Amino acid sequence: MRNILVIGAGRSASNLITYLIGKSESENLHVIIGDLSLENAQEHVKNHKNATAIRLDIFKEEERQKAIKNADIVISMLPARFHIEVAKDCVTFGKHMVTASYISDDMKALDEAVKAKGLVFMNEIGLDPGIDHMSAKQVIDRIQDKGGEMILFESFCGGLVAPESDTNLWNYKFTWNPRNVVLAGQGGVAQFIQEGQYKYIPYNRLFRRTEFLEVEGYGKFEAYANRNSLSYRSIYGIDDIPTMYRGTVRRVGYSRAWNMFVQLGMTDDSYILENSENMSYKDFVNAFLPYHPTNTVRLKMRHELKVDQDDVMWAKLLELDIFNADKKVGLKNATPAKILQKILEEKWTLAPEDKDMIVMYHKFGYILNGEKKQIDSKMVILGDDQTFTAMSKTVGLPVAIATLAILNGKIKTPGVQLPIRKEVYNPILKELEEYGIVFKETKMPYIGYNPDEI
Amino acid sequence: MRNILVIGAGRSASNLITYLIGKSESENLHVIIGDLSLENAQEHVKNHKNATAIRLDIFKEEERQKAIKNADIVISMLPARFHIEVAKDCVTFGKHMVTASYISDDMKALDEAVKAKGLVFMNEIGLDPGIDHMSAKQVIDRIQDKGGEMILFESFCGGLVAPESDTNLWNYKFTWNPRNVVLAGQGGVAQFIQEGQYKYIPYNRLFRRTEFLEVEGYGKFEAYANRNSLSYRSIYGIDDIPTMYRGTVRRVGYSRAWNMFVQLGMTDDSYILENSENMSYKDFVNAFLPYHPTNTVRLKMRHELKVDQDDVMWAKLLELDIFNADKKVGLKNATPAKILQKILEEKWTLAPEDKDMIVMYHKFGYILNGEKKQIDSKMVILGDDQTFTAMSKTVGLPVAIATLAILNGKIKTPGVQLPIRKEVYNPILKELEEYGIVFKETKMPYIGYNPDEI
Repeated sequence: MRNILVIGAGRSASNLITYLIGKSESENLHVIIGDLSLENAQEHVKNHKNATAIRLDIFKEEERQKAIKNADIVISMLPARFHIEVAKDCVTFGKHMVTASYISDDMKALDEAVKAKGLVFMNEIGLDPGIDHMSAKQVIDRIQDKGGEMILFESFCGGLVAPESDTNLWNYKFTWNPRNVVLAGQGGVAQFIQEGQYKYIPYNRLFRRTEFLEVEGYGKFEAYANRNSLSYRSIYGIDDIPTMYRGTVRRVGYSRAWNMFVQLGMTDDSYILENSENMSYKDFVNAFLPYHPTNTVRLKMRHELKVDQDDVMWAKLLELDIFNADKKVGLKNATPAKILQKILEEKWTLAPEDKDMIVMYHKFGYILNGEKKQIDSKMVILGDDQTFTAMSKTVGLPVAIATLAILNGKIKTPGVQLPIRKEVYNPILKELEEYGIVFKETKMPYIGYNPDEI
Repeated sequence: MRNILVIGAGRSASNLITYLIGKSESENLHVIIGDLSLENAQEHVKNHKNATAIRLDIFKEEERQKAIKNADIVISMLPARFHIEVAKDCVTFGKHMVTASYISDDMKALDEAVKAKGLVFMNEIGLDPGIDHMSAKQVIDRIQDKGGEMILFESFCGGLVAPESDTNLWNYKFTWNPRNVVLAGQGGVAQFIQEGQYKYIPYNRLFRRTEFLEVEGYGKFEAYANRNSLSYRSIYGIDDIPTMYRGTVRRVGYSRAWNMFVQLGMTDDSYILENSENMSYKDFVNAFLPYHPTNTVRLKMRHELKVDQDDVMWAKLLELDIFNADKKVGLKNATPAKILQKILEEKWTLAPEDKDMIVMYHKFGYILNGEKKQIDSKMVILGDDQTFTAMSKTVGLPVAIATLAILNGKIKTPGVQLPIRKEVYNPILKELEEYGIVFKETKMPYIGYNPDEI
């Protein structure tokens, strides 16, 4: 029996754990699921003989180390900032480790120690980061192996609501951490390169500088730029590529409406509003509008944001009940972002029967034999239900497959790494296809960037 | 002979030093001027027998302590962040200290030690902070002493260019630290209270939410909100006042045009632009605009910022030569803010014959004997030349007067303090009048906030 310790049994771990338990017989696995809530962990185990639920508080060193010592490999599904203590123990006790998070500086610093012990610490092997890396690098490697030269890479990904559950004017519901959605774009200027020109978009323009995308059968989408697209050039081995852009996908119209909150300052998480607890929703809006003794909050809002009478953006605001003078915020010492999150959660939480959807879209431009060409590669994944969501599938399955591959010695290059080598991405992408995680490629003449208006 | 050590002999120290040297005979003073540049210090001394110039590097402990030991009182005209080492030495060696800077947390922490030694550490005694505190508190105390209840306090201050030197379309030149002008408004949300309603303005709206002011003989001005107006309520003893607002004064139209830079992201000081050194001014602008193979930077700029063909904002941009494709930025690893500052300094630096101007404007609303009343109090100070600027007068004279008053035991309450007590502000404001620093008060019925549109 090989022991796999999964730390963190949230919703996004459903497919991961189901996969591992499903393989437990044939692969001789025992899956230990550790969570702060024993009930959470038990729900995943469902009394399977090859699985054990334990209560695990990672901040209790002894408890944590005991669980890690007992494992052959450790999967951390914790929030990214909590990985490092687990990682250090994995080095100490000589255990492999897998996460779906970006490699932090702390994690990177362990690389030498991890290599010295011959361990594999596989990170960024969820959806985004994860499937994006693997699916992109596979096509880039293919093009380069043929002698092609990459001239454009654009990559878009978004967690959305499935069309059948898409019931509000924003065409959006929270399918992962709402706080991250409210704070999206605040981590620094968005920077990328287009046709050799470096471009920078500040937060206050980010949601108005969207691009449009079309996915056959699913209609139109839009994308706003992710923080730093430039660092991916060296990771993907395309350092001199003239166009490199990464973006977050939303349904058309979402970003322009979201920008209203940005402009007013409602997404700010850096200060506390006076008397936030007793504010009404209307008071909250009014705090960001000029004082006037008689003009209504609604008219001031329309004027401040230049929202015409017949603009659907207004209906989007009304749908959120944001002008309600009777509903109280009810949060003590809250930042604007916290209050906005609360207001949105009332309207954007998935209903029990709702399904989510993942959209990923890559564009590859290249020159092969003197000819400019383009490949568009698209993936849409729908959730089955609220347990086996598209998010859980696309995050959990690559983690699970990688874990087993490491255990079985198929992924063996040691070090702190992400899945950009063929030995890693080829078998994983192949197995993911069995679970419906498939990219559809279209070859076309090179369109390039912003071509229609030349 | 009483020794006064003045540390930092920049331009804003001219009036300060001239005042002290002028009083040196009658008051038995010796003025020691210490600066990193001995030439700077000597320029102020002009071979006067009661003044000595020394080269002083405050980061050399021995040098610094020797100079402080030798003084009876120390004036620090250094940038605010450098006061603290001087202050600690003043405590150690039992010397009084005067600064024109806001009291930092570090400085505040010395209060007990300063009191224990019976020392006076007078801070915030320049212009803003300084004359603003004194002139405001004098009127507030007068109103409250008569039994009046304060219901409104608004205070505006700005360092501008004198009308006779006002030669550009922005009606602005740098009369103090250009970097602070470029970064203005970035220190956190602007917060204030109007008629009992707390209001918050994010950076991206700050320069579009201006108020207008009129000063007889000088025409119209505008003001944008300062960072945190609320903290002044307790300092001024008007905790429950329903309207409290502080703002920075500019000529009308400046803020709306400045907002173009804010919107594009050109005032950001948090990241470095790729290859900044070799960018042209036009490249710099283009970095914040969408890529297009053929459209001009100018048209993209007009479209992005919605600047109409006949809008004077466009002429303001042209005046800065910001679309020049031949001028190179020439700054290595520069942030957008650094580059913008360079571009502005080429156009906004005072010419040798230029004069500056200080505008301060307070509004006091109060209820006395059941009647609502208002006092507007205004001050305009013009510079004499580039040495005796309005900034140097209004910053340096209160510092100098306070220093002498402390030396002479007229200001004697010990501790780390700011000039809000009568014993301090009354004699200083009185003496400032001799130097033309005079407020003109107008009494009127209470107008209150935003009254025209009710």
